[in-house]
Amino acid sequence: MAVKTYDFQMTTKGFADIIDVTERVSRLVGESGLSDGLATVFVPGSTAGVTTVEFESGLVKDLKEAFERLAPTGVTYAHDARWGDGNGFSHVRSSLLKTSLTIPFKNSNLMLGTWQQIVIVDFDNRSRRRRVIVQVMGE
Amino acid sequence: MAVKTYDFQMTTKGFADIIDVTERVSRLVGESGLSDGLATVFVPGSTAGVTTVEFESGLVKDLKEAFERLAPTGVTYAHDARWGDGNGFSHVRSSLLKTSLTIPFKNSNLMLGTWQQIVIVDFDNRSRRRRVIVQVMGE
Amino acid sequence: MAVKTYDFQMTTKGFADIIDVTERVSRLVGESGLSDGLATVFVPGSTAGVTTVEFESGLVKDLKEAFERLAPTGVTYAHDARWGDGNGFSHVRSSLLKTSLTIPFKNSNLMLGTWQQIVIVDFDNRSRRRRVIVQVMGE
Repeated sequence: MAVKTYDFQMTTKGFADIIDVTERVSRLVGESGLSDGLATVFVPGSTAGVTTVEFESGLVKDLKEAFERLAPTGVTYAHDARWGDGNGFSHVRSSLLKTSLTIPFKNSNLMLGTWQQIVIVDFDNRSRRRRVIVQVMGE
Repeated sequence: MAVKTYDFQMTTKGFADIIDVTERVSRLVGESGLSDGLATVFVPGSTAGVTTVEFESGLVKDLKEAFERLAPTGVTYAHDARWGDGNGFSHVRSSLLKTSLTIPFKNSNLMLGTWQQIVIVDFDNRSRRRRVIVQVMGE
Repeated sequence: MAVKTYDFQMTTKGFADIIDVTERVSRLVGESGLSDGLATVFVPGSTAGVTTVEFESGLVKDLKEAFERLAPTGVTYAHDARWGDGNGFSHVRSSLLKTSLTIPFKNSNLMLGTWQQIVIVDFDNRSRRRRVIVQVMGE
């Protein structure tokens, strides 16, 4: 049993920018040399999130619209009144989707479905440089 | 410390079919022979999800209605326009609820509350044969 | 590699009471003596949840309002008709936010962002005594 902690960086566009990171997470599981265990994908910060989706342009659009219904940009946020950065909706979306996801792997392969990709969603209201943590634990 | 990866199959009815899998997960924790650790319940695929609920018929109905508010069947999904399978709402619900859940166990018992059950929700728009992964890690 | 399972108690006010537990979780990671691994925060029960947020009074208010939109108090819940405890909305919110969160740590530090705190949300419709599980696994 061992734990390996990795990270990678990426530039996002914000406004529910949805980025497929499956390939990067998968490569790090391979790099760990571990066969069976858990890969945890975690975004430090409070305006992003992580989940899975069938990554195709239709669903990317649908998911953005769902986030707009979940925490609309057009309502008043107390955060904005206090801090003036106008990204109250980004914070609320991040808290609802959450910043962590654990995926089992076996024989060094993530146990995802064929049409299931891991995505980081950047909810912020501007382009960001993001660090993503991938912690691989297993044997 | 060890990792054991199990799976089981089940048939669902789709349309936010909510299935209590607590007994099956609990049995696999017992089978692992491990005392303390994490049980990860993961559904491969992009039209299902996993969470906990007090599993009684009232809440099963309430939760279905909540998913209908969260990602309504009656709005237009770009996924459906592209792929024609009419399950855009199923994909969006899956991404929002997410397909993974980790539950600690101690003395070979899941640390759930008395009225808290683990459920798989099948959001697809048809009956499905589903595989559920249960990975048990601990000592 | 080792697993340490802790818990702590707290009194909440209910009605989406949002409590910052970062300090307590962080202290338990330190107490475990482990350097790298996963901290799992889990709430036994079916009327609470756990997530992360930038913990400031504006966002605490915004998040409460988001939960009110997600599962309003003013709609009819079948759970209430059957059980009469009037907390159907609390259960639905708990199932949507979920009761588990896993956070990686490295060099005995939780890998949270600077403005990212771990919070327990008590959705119940009354004050509660809550037990929170913190399971630390790693090396």
